[in-house]
Amino acid sequence: MASEYGKNLKVSVFGQSHGKAIGVNIDGLPAGETIDEEKLYRFIQRRAPGQNKTSTARKEKDKPVFLSGFEHGKTCGFPLCAIIENADMHSSDYESLKNKPRPGHADYTAYVKYGGTADMRGGGHFSGRLTAPLCIAGGIALQILEKHGIYIGAHVLSIADKQDDAFPLKPQKELFETIAKKDFPAINDAAAKEMEETILAAKAELDSVGGVVECAVTGLPAGLGGVMFDGIEGRLASAIFGIPAVKGVEFGLGFDATKIKGSQNNDAFIINGEKVETETNNCGGILGGISNGMPIVFKTAFKPTPSIAQKQKTVDLEKMENTTVEITGRHDPCVVLRAVPVVEAVAAIVILDMIME
Amino acid sequence: MASEYGKNLKVSVFGQSHGKAIGVNIDGLPAGETIDEEKLYRFIQRRAPGQNKTSTARKEKDKPVFLSGFEHGKTCGFPLCAIIENADMHSSDYESLKNKPRPGHADYTAYVKYGGTADMRGGGHFSGRLTAPLCIAGGIALQILEKHGIYIGAHVLSIADKQDDAFPLKPQKELFETIAKKDFPAINDAAAKEMEETILAAKAELDSVGGVVECAVTGLPAGLGGVMFDGIEGRLASAIFGIPAVKGVEFGLGFDATKIKGSQNNDAFIINGEKVETETNNCGGILGGISNGMPIVFKTAFKPTPSIAQKQKTVDLEKMENTTVEITGRHDPCVVLRAVPVVEAVAAIVILDMIME
Amino acid sequence: MASEYGKNLKVSVFGQSHGKAIGVNIDGLPAGETIDEEKLYRFIQRRAPGQNKTSTARKEKDKPVFLSGFEHGKTCGFPLCAIIENADMHSSDYESLKNKPRPGHADYTAYVKYGGTADMRGGGHFSGRLTAPLCIAGGIALQILEKHGIYIGAHVLSIADKQDDAFPLKPQKELFETIAKKDFPAINDAAAKEMEETILAAKAELDSVGGVVECAVTGLPAGLGGVMFDGIEGRLASAIFGIPAVKGVEFGLGFDATKIKGSQNNDAFIINGEKVETETNNCGGILGGISNGMPIVFKTAFKPTPSIAQKQKTVDLEKMENTTVEITGRHDPCVVLRAVPVVEAVAAIVILDMIME
Amino acid sequence: MASEYGKNLKVSVFGQSHGKAIGVNIDGLPAGETIDEEKLYRFIQRRAPGQNKTSTARKEKDKPVFLSGFEHGKTCGFPLCAIIENADMHSSDYESLKNKPRPGHADYTAYVKYGGTADMRGGGHFSGRLTAPLCIAGGIALQILEKHGIYIGAHVLSIADKQDDAFPLKPQKELFETIAKKDFPAINDAAAKEMEETILAAKAELDSVGGVVECAVTGLPAGLGGVMFDGIEGRLASAIFGIPAVKGVEFGLGFDATKIKGSQNNDAFIINGEKVETETNNCGGILGGISNGMPIVFKTAFKPTPSIAQKQKTVDLEKMENTTVEITGRHDPCVVLRAVPVVEAVAAIVILDMIME
Repeated sequence: MASEYGKNLKVSVFGQSHGKAIGVNIDGLPAGETIDEEKLYRFIQRRAPGQNKTSTARKEKDKPVFLSGFEHGKTCGFPLCAIIENADMHSSDYESLKNKPRPGHADYTAYVKYGGTADMRGGGHFSGRLTAPLCIAGGIALQILEKHGIYIGAHVLSIADKQDDAFPLKPQKELFETIAKKDFPAINDAAAKEMEETILAAKAELDSVGGVVECAVTGLPAGLGGVMFDGIEGRLASAIFGIPAVKGVEFGLGFDATKIKGSQNNDAFIINGEKVETETNNCGGILGGISNGMPIVFKTAFKPTPSIAQKQKTVDLEKMENTTVEITGRHDPCVVLRAVPVVEAVAAIVILDMIME
Repeated sequence: MASEYGKNLKVSVFGQSHGKAIGVNIDGLPAGETIDEEKLYRFIQRRAPGQNKTSTARKEKDKPVFLSGFEHGKTCGFPLCAIIENADMHSSDYESLKNKPRPGHADYTAYVKYGGTADMRGGGHFSGRLTAPLCIAGGIALQILEKHGIYIGAHVLSIADKQDDAFPLKPQKELFETIAKKDFPAINDAAAKEMEETILAAKAELDSVGGVVECAVTGLPAGLGGVMFDGIEGRLASAIFGIPAVKGVEFGLGFDATKIKGSQNNDAFIINGEKVETETNNCGGILGGISNGMPIVFKTAFKPTPSIAQKQKTVDLEKMENTTVEITGRHDPCVVLRAVPVVEAVAAIVILDMIME
Repeated sequence: MASEYGKNLKVSVFGQSHGKAIGVNIDGLPAGETIDEEKLYRFIQRRAPGQNKTSTARKEKDKPVFLSGFEHGKTCGFPLCAIIENADMHSSDYESLKNKPRPGHADYTAYVKYGGTADMRGGGHFSGRLTAPLCIAGGIALQILEKHGIYIGAHVLSIADKQDDAFPLKPQKELFETIAKKDFPAINDAAAKEMEETILAAKAELDSVGGVVECAVTGLPAGLGGVMFDGIEGRLASAIFGIPAVKGVEFGLGFDATKIKGSQNNDAFIINGEKVETETNNCGGILGGISNGMPIVFKTAFKPTPSIAQKQKTVDLEKMENTTVEITGRHDPCVVLRAVPVVEAVAAIVILDMIME
Repeated sequence: MASEYGKNLKVSVFGQSHGKAIGVNIDGLPAGETIDEEKLYRFIQRRAPGQNKTSTARKEKDKPVFLSGFEHGKTCGFPLCAIIENADMHSSDYESLKNKPRPGHADYTAYVKYGGTADMRGGGHFSGRLTAPLCIAGGIALQILEKHGIYIGAHVLSIADKQDDAFPLKPQKELFETIAKKDFPAINDAAAKEMEETILAAKAELDSVGGVVECAVTGLPAGLGGVMFDGIEGRLASAIFGIPAVKGVEFGLGFDATKIKGSQNNDAFIINGEKVETETNNCGGILGGISNGMPIVFKTAFKPTPSIAQKQKTVDLEKMENTTVEITGRHDPCVVLRAVPVVEAVAAIVILDMIME
């Protein structure tokens, strides 16, 4: 079992890259929530391929069709199922890969687990394409959260060794909106240009690059989350690692917190008007697994796209001998840009699941 | 709800630092598994305080008492409940902290969530002391996994800016055993000495330091885990973040994978005898959420202990004004050493839960 | 949250009676299972309306379309989503019912729970129509179980005070197949005729009747299930009560066991060849929540269809005054016949979920 | 996995009849709830054996010891673990039963499932003794529910063919309290006398009898519960079937509803003051799985105690031949009286779990 997340809100993703349709079923949404379909579609489009010159050429409309749970612009309290029909598929691109697992992909592990019966054309259910239904669910969650004054935004913090600015201590929703409208979702446009060039250079070398997405959740009251396995970190991480290509998640300073002293890392409490705040936010807004009222901030590491056009060493699983593989097809030299709304979407699903308790 | 982990194996931790007892209930253990109590106790002792000069002075025996599910040295298929009675508590140390949340601790967030009724003496249920029952459960899981040829080991990879050697490509159980017997659980003894000095220097400054634990799981067959939210990364991370003070988790190269090219990061498949292996293990033994037969390798970031003896800025929650706090009591200048077996324990719980599918 | 069942196999039902489509998503199916689509469709058709003169006149084709997880006649290990598009809807029939909850229906409770925003046309997500996706999931489960030698069959045991014969001690799959082909799924055709007349008499009086379905699961090995809340009874009951109109579930003699002595009710163990069996099966094949190798036998009570054409007392929820309601539309005078495959389907889902442990 | 119930409130029961202790861990209780320990103990005592002449002679104090989560008379928001130490055990009574499964007991099925390693002395984890920890959890839940105006009461509705009066349409808490204080928990004392005589007559014949418990939940607002698998019936039934010896559960008229017409079974809505009520309560307070504001009423069938002193036919599992068994030890001729508070307890756990959503 696999493709479901949530406790109060069950989000079940289905579909294969080259199947009839992909989609999501969301059980547990409150009734009567207005969802702006145009706004939702704009959000989903942020992850769609073919947007700018750094992305794969596969064009899709990715317009969701609502099968249930949504009538007259409102959720009706019943399970909401929405699908996107697949189109523009080049399955033959994958024929030559049979028995030759692509390095860095799930081909080999899926072969072992499913015994060769899985529909792995285009990556099957492992495909990055399955993040589209995640964006449907997350886009709905985002609209509901906004009505509670909770905003979620993300940006590309780094590509290879090129760095964007980090979020300020208290990022505002206007900043999130500005970033969302950019072709390259970064805070600092000069940094964005460097990062884009790094991607294009990798593409020119038939190679790929990875990067880090920083995400912030603002407006969350203190006291949400829970102790031990119910902590916000664990709940967010378990979902974020569900996004393809994610290899690391850290909160606040994360791994960098291990480099400094406790006296530097501890966030001093201060009174700000009527509110308890902290002077710094090294803990990423979470203490003991529970929100402290400051923004939740976390970073997600995406590995370089494994699909590269260079010849690579692999094995022939039938003949059990060493061989090489050359991947044709269309692939992103970098998934990080398109991952930005996906991280926002998944964060929104987790936070909505949590505040429904 | 909070302190439970697992799908096939339900591990429920209970107890407060200064309550009558702490313990764990494990539902779903197979029947007839022999558990060596002496070996289990030795494992639990690895996390006990008062072991070497870098640890807190609080002495405990931490000997588990089995209330159910374990008879004549064997599991009997019913829920296994084991407890450790608390002793040697200095609750008065915590009196002066009332209404003054310690920076970096759960005091403030617990206050908001539980409205002041939680038993927060000694950190309550948030205390690092609750990792003892985790070690009971994990120690049992480790013994069961060993019978399946699965071994789990960990070491201190870094303290502040001091580094131990990383695990080799294929760490053997003998290496795990050697590390487990050391006072300072590292691979390289010279590095261990540097790391220990770093801790003692921080202690002398009334400060604290954090660090990184590297953990490896060997002997796991390919094909375990699952797609999306059922991936090994997400399942491990959701549990590892349940350990107090953890702020980051990464698999294989993790965040460092974002700095290199796809051609460098992809692990080439090769035939080794009858087996498919990879030349490198940058992916940490996991592709598409599923094990590829190589060791699972992950790193966990522990923040510096928030309890430091220096005067710190905080607020008075009753008067709602800024103030300062000085923490007395006994505290580790660094939790990373004691966290090593806890990481192993939690990994063992997750892996056993997974292989029971 | 609501419409999901299962631990190892997650079956999520979605759709409203008068929405765009109804469907089911099944996560956790093993890969490579051949499913005979024709056989599946024949099974689903057994619950379809318009089959014989006792059923509602609403005609539907109820042909499932597979969106994912099923390729070339086989499951592929990924979530299987199948839908049925809605057609032939008379939503206007329901206009006059606004604010006047029909007695015995979910109208009033849905109104309170969802605040009037639920899409309740045709009963919305509460409609008996939602048993069609359950039959898709159950029909797939039945085909997989058959490969393990496990067969599930059911029949109408009673309508009002008219009784069919009970299943023999060891019902064979041929009996199940014979019943499944009948217009009136009963063992004894004379009894079937009496039961059918009872239904038609009620229909003539603009009234309705209920009845009992008996279901048997054969070929299940001893040792399945578990103690306390993991017992077969609880797991089956929790799912069976998810079928609309069910008001009681009993195993073996059930309520009748309370009328006899322990010496009469206890099933004596005997050796039959190499096998331990029981002389009688008063316990319905379950002892201590665990299968004993005899057939699992349980009975399900369906209340009379609440939709009747007689004028009934109700309230006007807007004016908060007493009034009456007359239900037009098309309704079954008895749902029990159509419920027979639904009980089989739900039992199959539960048993498959259990044997996957 | 087995002995856990709940979604928002996780109730995990552990212990064997003749182990060191039995107990319960409750995760998810709200913080700051005052629990009257004396009142809780009186509740638990209602199920204790040795209370009157119809019960087993085994004496126990069953005084719970709180290990965690409960300080100064209040819940503290952390997992609450309470245990009862075992005493007064006659394990030798069970020696002669080795390899000879008692008819009607879990001996055989546990033997198959656990391979002979389970600690089955005194019934092990299957023992009715494990209902004591259920009563601890349920007794706490009852006290919390009372603060919300929700009351739960039960009585012996029948023993064999002897009947108590049914609950009135709107039972009051005073009635529940009156019944709870009686030696024989019935409404009609003349009926109680007949039922008691029936039990004593069975005992004199070295036999046993079963019966039905009727339970009512009052004060529950309309709108609780949910559609399909989240319905109140399924959630209650899945837990009630976790009580040993339960073979049937029905809501409202239950199986009797199948004997009458829809026009008789439908409960007419009426305005009573400001409130919508129903004239009758044949549906047991539940429509479409959701509470309608009337009392929830359900009946539970308990089979006759399988332990009887008569010689019974069974098999020798080692020699695989037919034989007989004579059960000595101490056993109830009827568990129904002691089951009354257990049904209340389990209902309280389920209802508290539901209202926490």
